[in-house]
Amino acid sequence: MAEYIEGKRPVIEALRTGVPIERVLISDNAKRDGLMQDILRKAKHASVPVEEVRRAELDAKSERGSHQGVMAQAKPFAYANLQDIVRRATQQAEEQGGRALVVILDHITDAGNLGAILRSAEGVGAAGVVIPNKRSAHVTAATYKSSAGAVVRVPLAQVANIKQTCERLKEEGFWIAGASEKADTLIWDANLKGKMVLIMGNEGEGLARLTQEACDFLVALPQVGEVTSLNVAQAATACMYEWLRQNMQASAG
Amino acid sequence: MAEYIEGKRPVIEALRTGVPIERVLISDNAKRDGLMQDILRKAKHASVPVEEVRRAELDAKSERGSHQGVMAQAKPFAYANLQDIVRRATQQAEEQGGRALVVILDHITDAGNLGAILRSAEGVGAAGVVIPNKRSAHVTAATYKSSAGAVVRVPLAQVANIKQTCERLKEEGFWIAGASEKADTLIWDANLKGKMVLIMGNEGEGLARLTQEACDFLVALPQVGEVTSLNVAQAATACMYEWLRQNMQASAG
Repeated sequence: MAEYIEGKRPVIEALRTGVPIERVLISDNAKRDGLMQDILRKAKHASVPVEEVRRAELDAKSERGSHQGVMAQAKPFAYANLQDIVRRATQQAEEQGGRALVVILDHITDAGNLGAILRSAEGVGAAGVVIPNKRSAHVTAATYKSSAGAVVRVPLAQVANIKQTCERLKEEGFWIAGASEKADTLIWDANLKGKMVLIMGNEGEGLARLTQEACDFLVALPQVGEVTSLNVAQAATACMYEWLRQNMQASAG
Repeated sequence: MAEYIEGKRPVIEALRTGVPIERVLISDNAKRDGLMQDILRKAKHASVPVEEVRRAELDAKSERGSHQGVMAQAKPFAYANLQDIVRRATQQAEEQGGRALVVILDHITDAGNLGAILRSAEGVGAAGVVIPNKRSAHVTAATYKSSAGAVVRVPLAQVANIKQTCERLKEEGFWIAGASEKADTLIWDANLKGKMVLIMGNEGEGLARLTQEACDFLVALPQVGEVTSLNVAQAATACMYEWLRQNMQASAG
């Protein structure tokens, strides 16, 4: 199903942050104010076709009823295959002293968090990120924005089953580490060197039981304060950098 | 100047996330729809007074013209003194094997980033966070939301001058580490043990020159990917956890 971005400022933001847009729809009676001129200019610059349609057509497509006379139809996101990510990881491991990282997100629900995690994954040079194809945040305009462009640079794959994906990655020589607040081992006391899979749980419940069972070991990021948990994107960033630290220090030492 | 939160959903969100509200203003001709009922219920539950005013009064107070007949006046945020943070840090250092952390944010501009950093600062048990009192994000409703409550748990101080604040903290026995992409030393090769100040630069330009000069040393979080920089809240989280790692491993070893 096509994703539509509705409203003047969200459409401007989508064009500005590089969301691939199929076409922009403008209602035939929309006022050509400053924001609308900005949309037309940005669409032209990005070679995005602009179509004038009847307002009733926008009303019918609108989910939130806040289109203000303009909607942008996003192109479907091009997900990678797990196989692509495995291949990229294998190549990285050969080139980078044995290290490679795949991040699996166990049903996170916020498209902005997905983007923030992709941005950090790109920063540490992860081979790819894997999400489930159901009951999970997928790539939306919010992901483009919070990823600051990383969404098109880090391969992102959708899979049907996280447990099977873990089995597959184990066969390829990966170790599977699950991040869990309840783990006994602090993340920096675990061995994260080499080809690692890092699994982050969702915002509310953490790792699902089946996912935990698929892990080789669980690691905790210590929480010294009183707030019960970090934001999942912050936690993922700290864990990914700990993976990078162990591997870079090992190859330097 | 009082901060006003305008519009039905933002006011609901502010009441939900615990923003301290002075009063809720509702226009005399506003429709009492489901969202408005929700606002009235939540305000009553939080013992927040609701005042009916003329729509023209809301129009006059509105910055964005999107009040939808309702605005909430936030209470002024209670900033801490630098002295409070120093005292708390000294006590923490005595109780926690010598470690204490103060985070200084050098003119960051996004109130959501401020909240996200406060959340991580709380997670690692930082003594406090310091921001400049001018040209910097300050606490708004967005900060409450992204901090997930941490904004009322970690002391946050506003100061007139970051360089002088650094001098003051040096006299109190702190080392000052500035996070800079251009630093030659990777953060995990630096010594972050003991009483540390970590300074994070702003979203666009990083650390100001004067701020850099006030640092004892600069550290870099490596960027392996192609995107030029991490989000400042993500970078701050990774740096704060590296401080915690070094200190916890030192006291365990």
